[in-house]
Amino acid sequence: MNPRVPIRRGEHAGPTAGLAPGRVQANLVVLPAALAPDFSRFCALNPKPCPLLAETQPGDPGFPALGADIDVRTDLPRYRVFRDGELVDEPTDIRGYWRDDLVAFAIGCSFSFEQALLEAGIRLRHVDTGKNVSMYRTSVDTLPAGPFHGPLVVSMRPLRPAEAIRAVEITARYPRVHGAPVHIGLPEAIGIRDLARPDWGDPTEVRSDELPVFWACGVTPQAAIALAKPALCITHAPGHMLITDLANSQLAQH
Amino acid sequence: MNPRVPIRRGEHAGPTAGLAPGRVQANLVVLPAALAPDFSRFCALNPKPCPLLAETQPGDPGFPALGADIDVRTDLPRYRVFRDGELVDEPTDIRGYWRDDLVAFAIGCSFSFEQALLEAGIRLRHVDTGKNVSMYRTSVDTLPAGPFHGPLVVSMRPLRPAEAIRAVEITARYPRVHGAPVHIGLPEAIGIRDLARPDWGDPTEVRSDELPVFWACGVTPQAAIALAKPALCITHAPGHMLITDLANSQLAQH
Repeated sequence: MNPRVPIRRGEHAGPTAGLAPGRVQANLVVLPAALAPDFSRFCALNPKPCPLLAETQPGDPGFPALGADIDVRTDLPRYRVFRDGELVDEPTDIRGYWRDDLVAFAIGCSFSFEQALLEAGIRLRHVDTGKNVSMYRTSVDTLPAGPFHGPLVVSMRPLRPAEAIRAVEITARYPRVHGAPVHIGLPEAIGIRDLARPDWGDPTEVRSDELPVFWACGVTPQAAIALAKPALCITHAPGHMLITDLANSQLAQH
Repeated sequence: MNPRVPIRRGEHAGPTAGLAPGRVQANLVVLPAALAPDFSRFCALNPKPCPLLAETQPGDPGFPALGADIDVRTDLPRYRVFRDGELVDEPTDIRGYWRDDLVAFAIGCSFSFEQALLEAGIRLRHVDTGKNVSMYRTSVDTLPAGPFHGPLVVSMRPLRPAEAIRAVEITARYPRVHGAPVHIGLPEAIGIRDLARPDWGDPTEVRSDELPVFWACGVTPQAAIALAKPALCITHAPGHMLITDLANSQLAQH
């Protein structure tokens, strides 16, 4: 059963977490072709926060490498449309916005590595408590490309030290979905003053026998786009991802 | 040039650090054959602190898997001889102690993974300052086998968080020389009360932008032997290792 079919038909407009277990889900970014080379370079320069899985040809809404029948105009449950950096619409399909000069980018998402962690028996508190992961703007800058620049955004998962070490080993095998953590244990060293006040997502308790472990986050390219204020940009709505035909296990190295 | 030849001839009786760069150096443990199965099982149960590289046949002083010409009775610069757990001699060869029922064990040593870290550009403070690495008895117990039991002993290297993450990735590839760290960041969680007072080795400064990173240590089997008090036991003298013909790179996985 192709999980994109009910989404395409408008029968599922909710978040995709838990749909199609084991399949890679991706962040979507759609930009005018004039900005595509800079954005592509931004991803290449910042592979941990922006692991580019695939990029379409201008005007072509297909991602054959991710699924033969994918149509990015209809196959996500909900989108966000930005004009000059302002959110103007949250439609359930974007056929009305599609143009011959649009390029779509699919970027790896932490769902894949979280599944690998859960399969290894590592509990994730935001999953256990049904919350969104805590995300923070850091004092670390991305490498700029054209108009795209801005801070590295990280997600944080509290883990006991031995689990943190296993989590590094496991996620290092998934460079196409953010890879190994970028930081551990000392939030102030990357400009995070108060762990209890994330910039995105929900607060997550960090217990005294745990360390905060930080991974590069897919909000990083969104923050860079917000700063670049392109005339038109379309993304997935948070949590409403592109479900691909790739298996998470296909992304594992070694 | 075979670096064991001058050692065998008695021309080099000093530490082996820095000799034969790139080659695997090993800890040596020699025990009566009656204790060998228990010690072998102790290593198998505790592979991180006791990564067994090779084991001889009773009475045979050769380690063909580690070097065709190795004679463990002459090929280390200095030994320690223990009777009933008491140090009784520190000779430069053990031909006078050799018996037909002795079994020798070669156990992986942190020199190999330290070389991999240094090659990756990660500075190690105890190397930079010419000190011994700091080692600590922990509150974590090894899994016992026969008379062999005791605490996990760890070595500690201070690293900045991003380096600590890379160090996990790198050393995870070397399971035969202690592998990935066993702990990071919260010494009290494994029973270490004062980092400034190691149980073996020299103190190492941990700066405010660093985390202490803990690896399982080859002193663990020595501590287990000290508790077991075998009638006879011979080991390498600290820092005076068995130089093998294996390249460190041969121990890397993937």
